Amino acid sequence: MKPIHPNGLHETVADIVRELGDKVNVRTATLDQPEQGLPDEILNQTDVLIWWGHCAHDKVEDGLVSKIQERVLKGMGLIVLHSGHYSKIFRRMMGTSCDLRWRDDTYERVFCISPNHPIAKGIPEHFDLGIEECYGERFDIPQPDEVIFEGWFDIGEVFRSGCVWNRGYGKVFYFQPGHETNNAFQNQYIRQIIKNAVEWIAPAVYRDSMGSPHINPTLEELRK
Amino acid sequence: MKPIHPNGLHETVADIVRELGDKVNVRTATLDQPEQGLPDEILNQTDVLIWWGHCAHDKVEDGLVSKIQERVLKGMGLIVLHSGHYSKIFRRMMGTSCDLRWRDDTYERVFCISPNHPIAKGIPEHFDLGIEECYGERFDIPQPDEVIFEGWFDIGEVFRSGCVWNRGYGKVFYFQPGHETNNAFQNQYIRQIIKNAVEWIAPAVYRDSMGSPHINPTLEELRK
Amino acid sequence: MKPIHPNGLHETVADIVRELGDKVNVRTATLDQPEQGLPDEILNQTDVLIWWGHCAHDKVEDGLVSKIQERVLKGMGLIVLHSGHYSKIFRRMMGTSCDLRWRDDTYERVFCISPNHPIAKGIPEHFDLGIEECYGERFDIPQPDEVIFEGWFDIGEVFRSGCVWNRGYGKVFYFQPGHETNNAFQNQYIRQIIKNAVEWIAPAVYRDSMGSPHINPTLEELRK
Amino acid sequence: MKPIHPNGLHETVADIVRELGDKVNVRTATLDQPEQGLPDEILNQTDVLIWWGHCAHDKVEDGLVSKIQERVLKGMGLIVLHSGHYSKIFRRMMGTSCDLRWRDDTYERVFCISPNHPIAKGIPEHFDLGIEECYGERFDIPQPDEVIFEGWFDIGEVFRSGCVWNRGYGKVFYFQPGHETNNAFQNQYIRQIIKNAVEWIAPAVYRDSMGSPHINPTLEELRK
Repeated sequence: MKPIHPNGLHETVADIVRELGDKVNVRTATLDQPEQGLPDEILNQTDVLIWWGHCAHDKVEDGLVSKIQERVLKGMGLIVLHSGHYSKIFRRMMGTSCDLRWRDDTYERVFCISPNHPIAKGIPEHFDLGIEECYGERFDIPQPDEVIFEGWFDIGEVFRSGCVWNRGYGKVFYFQPGHETNNAFQNQYIRQIIKNAVEWIAPAVYRDSMGSPHINPTLEELRK
Repeated sequence: MKPIHPNGLHETVADIVRELGDKVNVRTATLDQPEQGLPDEILNQTDVLIWWGHCAHDKVEDGLVSKIQERVLKGMGLIVLHSGHYSKIFRRMMGTSCDLRWRDDTYERVFCISPNHPIAKGIPEHFDLGIEECYGERFDIPQPDEVIFEGWFDIGEVFRSGCVWNRGYGKVFYFQPGHETNNAFQNQYIRQIIKNAVEWIAPAVYRDSMGSPHINPTLEELRK
Repeated sequence: MKPIHPNGLHETVADIVRELGDKVNVRTATLDQPEQGLPDEILNQTDVLIWWGHCAHDKVEDGLVSKIQERVLKGMGLIVLHSGHYSKIFRRMMGTSCDLRWRDDTYERVFCISPNHPIAKGIPEHFDLGIEECYGERFDIPQPDEVIFEGWFDIGEVFRSGCVWNRGYGKVFYFQPGHETNNAFQNQYIRQIIKNAVEWIAPAVYRDSMGSPHINPTLEELRK
Repeated sequence: MKPIHPNGLHETVADIVRELGDKVNVRTATLDQPEQGLPDEILNQTDVLIWWGHCAHDKVEDGLVSKIQERVLKGMGLIVLHSGHYSKIFRRMMGTSCDLRWRDDTYERVFCISPNHPIAKGIPEHFDLGIEECYGERFDIPQPDEVIFEGWFDIGEVFRSGCVWNRGYGKVFYFQPGHETNNAFQNQYIRQIIKNAVEWIAPAVYRDSMGSPHINPTLEELRK
């Protein structure tokens, strides 16, 4: 049987982004690499970080999580896929538990409820994803700035499956499909959504700090 | 067979609100009454207006719709039930088509995704409503200030079934259950939600106009 | 004295958009033209409509307002400038009175509070606009999907001066500067914001109706 | 000279809440107490926690911050005053830096832009606070679920001075006035807002975990 992720799940996702062509320069990082794959010189050159993780969330070092958070607040886009909902970095950016009700594989249909969002470009108002691990509400997240996708699962669950939030000068996109034993990443619409998200979430500009200089003209000066 | 609404659907809903006891003074109004049941002296004493309509939306007079809109903007709460999504007053308050995808009766489960909202008090995180007319996304509404309930329908639909919006000094709550041939209004949770909504949406205060007086102290006066 | 708008205010605004070059094809329309400048064949080819009006809001025909609303719901971007806050079309899209507290000319500073929004690209965290007609809160609008700019006025007023809302498949951007006797449209940042807004609000796609076909597979079919 | 806070700032704030009478049972806690004033048995009985801090944010133990966060997610209300914007607990709940532009004392006017929110009950559309430490935008917070108050400062700053967010089953209210050397807490409207906030933010119910039991009826069972 052909493996679903012959080069690892990270390469499966990277291949999707590579379809954006010359616009992007794609790297992958894994936990077993030095500095967990994200030394400063790489993190500080990264415009968009896509995070997928499952069983090893606890192994990610708190110091690295803080560095990633700081980088997002300066402008880096963060895309969190599937079981990454429970990653340290997503929970850090949200301030909530990010818990949800987990159920086993079932049939999922995805609805697009914000069709004019750039992430939804080229996506129909609903499409059938097929078998996917089921995540159910209540999903313990802050109210999203925009809910773009909602998932329907045939065993009786709904889920806010695609959500965006501003955080500092950066943005966060959470997207629910992508269980390692299913085929979400082979679905044309899932692939399109991930590519749309990368383009949308890439920063227009980085700002090193909030500290824009104080404004010091007096009112008399203002009125001249 | 016992009729579902022996005194008309409006009395079915009124009986729910009457369970709030002495706090409320409940009237009903129907299209066939003089001035469509809402002459000025009644409308101007109304704190919360619950709207249910189905086939006769077009018969509601535009002038009355404008008066209701103005009253909401001054503070009156507006609760719109089920097929009222397509009423003139709801569309007026929203600015959108308020269209949706309609399907026939099916099985609905309701999820509460904003459990700390006053409208959700006493409501479990999900409950089974049973057979209800199916409304599907995309529901053409402005982004709600808060989505409180989501509906799951077994034929493959999801719906933002309970949503709130501020409008002027008033508020609007749309709630999807309540088809005339089904039993939603006999469901204990639906009844509780409607009562919660009435209490939450009643205005703390009315304000006659935006026109608070201009602020005229000079800066020199300010700084004294 | 050189007039501020030698060819009319509409041409002043059009010249800003023309700086986008070949990407855009700019027309203007005024009330005194046949069909108030917006016959169907023109409206239906328009991707972005910029609306400025002041004293003649009442002269705009209701039928035209309905056509513009419908066009926005299908995807057309609508940018409303300054005193257009009180236009029929803006009030129609909002569902509120869109009233505000008006005061005379004073000194305005503009703050950018959503610096990662595309409309804010290239705009500093604050800039001094100088003398502008003063609009004060409370501005009777629905809660914006995002507040991008806030205005500070030296006589003691604040204003949500740049706000966006989704409506149907389209979007609406309201922007407060632009009084006819002042120089807002000569300000480099105001010009940049208007150009950014045109690019951001142009539709990716038009959709003719909500009426995507019903979904009819049975659950048994789904599970195959 | 009479001191502004004869019994410490915490008692100044406590006295405001005590005006709610028998409805409340008010305690205070300070950093120098055992377990920083918030041992488990006290924290777990607390419905609303009001946080004020200034120079000693770093001294608050991370373990305590985690316990408070967990308590908020289960339903406890959190009110953060003034320089508490930079407290560990507020930053934890927000996921952002919560930085702002700080300036010295100046004249502040407060605008109420969500007049129908319970926190605004009895508050006029604007009131003059007088001399207060100036906080300026951009305030690095997630988009609030609702901005209730905005501050205008005469040296040319605006600030989202009253904001609310849902977090888990709890809520957070940030309110900007309250510098230790000024008189905000003697202002009648500030006092009213704090009392309103305590009443609004107190939880209707606590929930111990997200873990509502899985839903296990089969579709065949559902359809019976």
